[in-house]
Amino acid sequence: MNKARLEAFSDGVLAIIITIMVLELKVPEEPTYEALLKLTPIFLSYVLSFIYVGIYWNNHHHMLHSVSRVNGRILWANLHLLFWLSLVPFATDWMGENHFAKSTLTVYGIPLLMAGLAYWILQTVIIRSQGQDSVLKKAIGKDYKGLSSPPLYILGIVLSFYNEWLSLSVYAFVALMWLIPDSRIERQITASIEEKHHKENP
Amino acid sequence: MNKARLEAFSDGVLAIIITIMVLELKVPEEPTYEALLKLTPIFLSYVLSFIYVGIYWNNHHHMLHSVSRVNGRILWANLHLLFWLSLVPFATDWMGENHFAKSTLTVYGIPLLMAGLAYWILQTVIIRSQGQDSVLKKAIGKDYKGLSSPPLYILGIVLSFYNEWLSLSVYAFVALMWLIPDSRIERQITASIEEKHHKENP
Amino acid sequence: MNKARLEAFSDGVLAIIITIMVLELKVPEEPTYEALLKLTPIFLSYVLSFIYVGIYWNNHHHMLHSVSRVNGRILWANLHLLFWLSLVPFATDWMGENHFAKSTLTVYGIPLLMAGLAYWILQTVIIRSQGQDSVLKKAIGKDYKGLSSPPLYILGIVLSFYNEWLSLSVYAFVALMWLIPDSRIERQITASIEEKHHKENP
Amino acid sequence: MNKARLEAFSDGVLAIIITIMVLELKVPEEPTYEALLKLTPIFLSYVLSFIYVGIYWNNHHHMLHSVSRVNGRILWANLHLLFWLSLVPFATDWMGENHFAKSTLTVYGIPLLMAGLAYWILQTVIIRSQGQDSVLKKAIGKDYKGLSSPPLYILGIVLSFYNEWLSLSVYAFVALMWLIPDSRIERQITASIEEKHHKENP
Repeated sequence: MNKARLEAFSDGVLAIIITIMVLELKVPEEPTYEALLKLTPIFLSYVLSFIYVGIYWNNHHHMLHSVSRVNGRILWANLHLLFWLSLVPFATDWMGENHFAKSTLTVYGIPLLMAGLAYWILQTVIIRSQGQDSVLKKAIGKDYKGLSSPPLYILGIVLSFYNEWLSLSVYAFVALMWLIPDSRIERQITASIEEKHHKENP
Repeated sequence: MNKARLEAFSDGVLAIIITIMVLELKVPEEPTYEALLKLTPIFLSYVLSFIYVGIYWNNHHHMLHSVSRVNGRILWANLHLLFWLSLVPFATDWMGENHFAKSTLTVYGIPLLMAGLAYWILQTVIIRSQGQDSVLKKAIGKDYKGLSSPPLYILGIVLSFYNEWLSLSVYAFVALMWLIPDSRIERQITASIEEKHHKENP
Repeated sequence: MNKARLEAFSDGVLAIIITIMVLELKVPEEPTYEALLKLTPIFLSYVLSFIYVGIYWNNHHHMLHSVSRVNGRILWANLHLLFWLSLVPFATDWMGENHFAKSTLTVYGIPLLMAGLAYWILQTVIIRSQGQDSVLKKAIGKDYKGLSSPPLYILGIVLSFYNEWLSLSVYAFVALMWLIPDSRIERQITASIEEKHHKENP
Repeated sequence: MNKARLEAFSDGVLAIIITIMVLELKVPEEPTYEALLKLTPIFLSYVLSFIYVGIYWNNHHHMLHSVSRVNGRILWANLHLLFWLSLVPFATDWMGENHFAKSTLTVYGIPLLMAGLAYWILQTVIIRSQGQDSVLKKAIGKDYKGLSSPPLYILGIVLSFYNEWLSLSVYAFVALMWLIPDSRIERQITASIEEKHHKENP
C-alpha cells in the first residue's frame, strides 16, 4: 500500500484549510483605508495560522518522506490530525473578529494542542509500523520541539485566562520555534542513505 | 488507461467535501462561551460526517489499490459516488442547524444510503472489469459491512419518523462499524502477492 | 516537460468547480419539507452542471492520456478551458435561483458554448504538437460529438429567447449525448498499441 | 527529498485561489441583464487576476521543472510566495466591488509586488541550491521580465494615487507581457539536454 494517495489527500485538505482562512478577510464595502485597517486583527490572525498550517505541511512532508508503506492505522491517525487542523480556520476567525479577546485565545489553543497531540500519535504509529530500525525514530532523535509544543500550548491556554497578549506571545513563539526549518530529519535521512551506500561500496 | 487521475480527482473532491463542512461552523459574533456552545449540534454533526467522508476516502483508497486499469464505466461509477457524497455537507448542515429535528435525520440518511449503493455499484463495475480472477472480489469476500450498511441506513431513515435519537444512533453505529479499519482487502492483497511469489519461487 | 502537473492542476480546479456548486444549495432555516422542496430548481440545475463538469473531466482525462509532452501553448489553452468552466457555477446558480427564467438559460449557454470552443482549441493545439502521426487525431476520428456540440449550444441559446423548456431540453440532450462514455479514444489507443506490437512481433 | 509534494501542494493552493475568486461573482437576485451588467467591474477584475494566477502557475511549473531536489529553504520560500498570492482574491474583490477606485488599485498592487519579490526569492534560493551549474540560472538568462515586473508594479501603485485607469493599464500590461509563453526556460532545458547528449554521443 503506497503513500501517494495519503500525501495527495493531505495536501488537498491542507491546501484548502490554508486557503479558506483568507475567505474570512471579508472585503469592506467602502474603498477607504479606514475600512481596510479595521481588518488588521483578522489579517494578523490569518498570518499566524498560515504559518502554523505551513509548519504542519512542512513537517508532514518530512515525516512522510521517511515512510515507505502505509496501513489502516496510519490512514486514520492522519485523518485525526487533519480533523483538528480543520478547526484552525474557525478558531482563527473567531479570534480575529473579536480582537484577540481572552476567551478566543483559550479556544485558539485547543485545536493547536490537539493537532500537536495528533501529530505525535501519527509519528508514534509510523515508528511502530517501521519496526526496530525505524528511520523516523532515528531522524527525530530527541525531538525537543515536538515534546515542548504541547506544554507550551497548555501554557498559552492557561495564560489566556489572565492576559491575552501573553497568551498570544506563547502561540507566536511556538510558531517561530518551528519556522526554523526542521533539518534534523533531512540530515538523518541523508546520513543513513550515505551510510548504506558506504557499506555497499566501501 | 491508468488510475492516477481517477485517484487524484477523487482525492480533490473528497478533500473539498470534508473541508467545506467546517465552513458551516459559522463564527459567533460575541466572544462568549454561551455563543460558542450554541454551535454544539453543528459541531457534532460535523464530527459524524467527517468520519463518514473519512471512511469513504479510506475504503476508496483500499478498493482502488486493487485496480490496475480503469475504463469509462469505472470513471462514471466513481463520479456517481462523488455526486451523492457531495450532498453530505448540505444534509449535515441542515441537521445541525435544526438540532437533529426528525425530518433532517430522514434527509441525512438519503445521501448516506445513495452513496452506499453507489459504492456497491462502483465495486461491482470494478470486479466485472477485472474478470474471473478479480483480486477485489476475493479481497472483499463476504463483505458483511458493505451488505449490511444499506439496510441499516434504511432502518435509520424509517426510525427518524418516530424518534430522532434512535435514528441518529443507527447512523453513528454504522460509522463506528466502518471506523474499525478494513484489513480484509489489505490482508488479501498481501496474501495473493505472497502466493504468486511462492508459485514463481517454490 | 511532463504532463503530470497539468493534470493535477486541472483536476484540482475541476474538483473545486464541481464542489462549490453544491454550496449554492443553501440550507433552509426551517426543518420542513416545504422549505426543502423550494430548492428543487437549484438542485436540478446542480445535477445538470455536475454532469457537464463530469463530462469535461472525463474527456479531459481521455484527451490528455494520448499526450506525452506539453508545451506553453497547451498550458494556456488548458487554462483558457478552465476559465470558461469556472463560470459554470455562477450560471448554474443564477438559473436555479430564478427558476429557469429565459434570460438565465441564455446566459447558461454561454460558458457551455465557450468551454466547448476552448476544448476544441485545446484539442487542436495538442494535435498540432503531436505532428503528423498524432494519436489523438486518429483517436477522435470524425468527432461528431465535438463538432455538433457548439451548434447545439447556439440552438439552446437561440431557443431560450422563445421558450425556456425547449432551451433546457437542448442543454440536457447534449449532456446525455456525452454521458455515453467516449470509447472512441480508448479503443483507438488500444488498437494502435496492438498494431505496434503486431508489427514488432509479427 | 523529491519535489512531487511541493508541486502538488502548490497546485492545490493555486487551484483554490483561482477558483474562489469566482465566488465573488455573487449571483444577482433578479433574472435581468441590467442586474447582470452591474457585475462587469467584478468580472473584469476576475479576468485580470485569473490571468495573473495562471501566469504564476505557468512560471512555477517551468521553474520547478528544472529542480530535482528540494530542501527546507525552498519549501518556505514557496509558502511565502503562496501567502502573497492568497491575498490576490481579496484585493481583486475589493477592486471590483468598488469599481476600480484609486485606493483599491493601490492595494491591488501590493500582493502583486510582494508575490513578484517572493517569486524572485524562490528563484534565487533554487539557483543557490543547484550550485554553480544551475540549470535554472542558465535558463532564465537575463530575465528581463522578472526584473522589470517589480518596478512596473511600483509604477502602478504610484500611478494609482493620480489616475486609476493609468494604474490599471500598467497592471494589465505586465499581465500581457507574461502571457506570452515563457519559452526561455523550455528552450534552455531542451538545449542543455541535447548538449549533454551530444557530448556523450559525439
